[in-house]
Amino acid sequence: MKIEIISDIEEMQAFSDGRRRQGQTIALVPTMGFLHAGHSSLMSRARQSGDILVVSIFVNPAQFGPGEDFATYPRNMKNDLSITGEEGVDIVFTPGDKALYPEGYETYVSLTNLPEHLCGTFRPAHFRGVATVVAKLFNIVTPHVAIFGQKDYQQLAVIRRMVRDLNFGIQIIGAPTVRDPDGLAMSSRNNYLTARERPAALSLYRSLMKAAQLVQSGVRDAARVIHAAAELIQSYADTKIDYVSICDPDTLDDVKTIDRPSLMALAVRVGKTRLIDNMILKP
Amino acid sequence: MKIEIISDIEEMQAFSDGRRRQGQTIALVPTMGFLHAGHSSLMSRARQSGDILVVSIFVNPAQFGPGEDFATYPRNMKNDLSITGEEGVDIVFTPGDKALYPEGYETYVSLTNLPEHLCGTFRPAHFRGVATVVAKLFNIVTPHVAIFGQKDYQQLAVIRRMVRDLNFGIQIIGAPTVRDPDGLAMSSRNNYLTARERPAALSLYRSLMKAAQLVQSGVRDAARVIHAAAELIQSYADTKIDYVSICDPDTLDDVKTIDRPSLMALAVRVGKTRLIDNMILKP
Repeated sequence: MKIEIISDIEEMQAFSDGRRRQGQTIALVPTMGFLHAGHSSLMSRARQSGDILVVSIFVNPAQFGPGEDFATYPRNMKNDLSITGEEGVDIVFTPGDKALYPEGYETYVSLTNLPEHLCGTFRPAHFRGVATVVAKLFNIVTPHVAIFGQKDYQQLAVIRRMVRDLNFGIQIIGAPTVRDPDGLAMSSRNNYLTARERPAALSLYRSLMKAAQLVQSGVRDAARVIHAAAELIQSYADTKIDYVSICDPDTLDDVKTIDRPSLMALAVRVGKTRLIDNMILKP
Repeated sequence: MKIEIISDIEEMQAFSDGRRRQGQTIALVPTMGFLHAGHSSLMSRARQSGDILVVSIFVNPAQFGPGEDFATYPRNMKNDLSITGEEGVDIVFTPGDKALYPEGYETYVSLTNLPEHLCGTFRPAHFRGVATVVAKLFNIVTPHVAIFGQKDYQQLAVIRRMVRDLNFGIQIIGAPTVRDPDGLAMSSRNNYLTARERPAALSLYRSLMKAAQLVQSGVRDAARVIHAAAELIQSYADTKIDYVSICDPDTLDDVKTIDRPSLMALAVRVGKTRLIDNMILKP
């Protein structure tokens, strides 16, 4: 099957409906485009999980706050189509802003607990925007399975919870973070980094490594691990910590003592670029 | 096909999935049970609209506020099964509270505008509860078409808007209000009314009739029509008006001059029973 680009919502729905009636399974990778090797790994995971592989490309205005980088978020459809072509994608779904959020739009999906942690406290309507657009994409593409990256850990947790709570009959797969050889987690926002800022961007991964070492050497006090990680990050120029947190991987509630697998998650501004990363610490 | 009762969410999903794969269409009538002739009319409308007719019976805790009548809401499964049997229903879906809202539940569908009118101002989380449970039922039953009564006009408007906004590929049909011979709109809550209160309950329908007469006789000033209707209602003992409103049928924004078809909607407490009714006024 040759790659096909669909922009129209009803055409996408009709396509999926037809394939479902033929008994085929659909795998979806929702993206905001500017695809990189991290997305490629999601696509190849999805390729194994369904007969039809759909990649959506949509920079979702509802998940950006005022003053955030919606307008400048990087876009490169030509390169995106080249990557999706290489990955054997069947359908690239590229709806327009006005089609997904027409005039008078007023319905949102929101969670009461998970967004009160980590990034949600810095980006108040972000996860409402994420949950809403993903619910919409699920209703349009009607996938059997959808793949999300673990790099956006809280997003993955929010989507798993939404799928369970709203009874979407969709399997959610979390795929491991893909890193550059130097350890930097792949992100479309890495594109913002200047050559000068790149070393400071590595502070996220290095602080996670440092934390893992401390836990492996027997440290169990979360505050001590967080302090060491923060110190490491602050030793780089141009870094500003939003948060460094060690928490329960399911509820995202803070963990005081690392006596079971715990999520270490962090968000750091490097110059004007906000980067996130995370890792499970195993005592 | 004999009527079948399904309580399990996954069994319901698997049933619908199987039927959809066979190319059959599914019609859903969501109810809170204690079925009456109003529901029967929804079912016979649905019977024409799909190969498989599913009626859900679930008293949804999320749409009742503190101090409202969740605990006392009337239930009569035996009679409900008799009515669904008569109406040729294929599946009665009766999920449990804990199955639909398990521990840790935290995802809600809400609208920012429509619930800020009419009943929404008196029942703050009501339409969030309605939108959420209907989204869940849509994901579980995956109907092609769903039928709701026009008696709950604002609910119907909220669901139409949610379906459009969240891209549910579901046709929504609004079915006309069914009335007792004396004009009282059928409602499971009429069961609360004492014989003494019944005449006062008729004040809703009579005030709508009065309003229609005034508009037909040339009155265009909404305030004057509302005043006449309210006066009529207040002439009955034991009535307390929550609101009498004339508004745009789509946005529910107040209308000052009735120069196009406008919705007259009202909520009145008769003793302890809260009743609603509505009508389109045509100039």
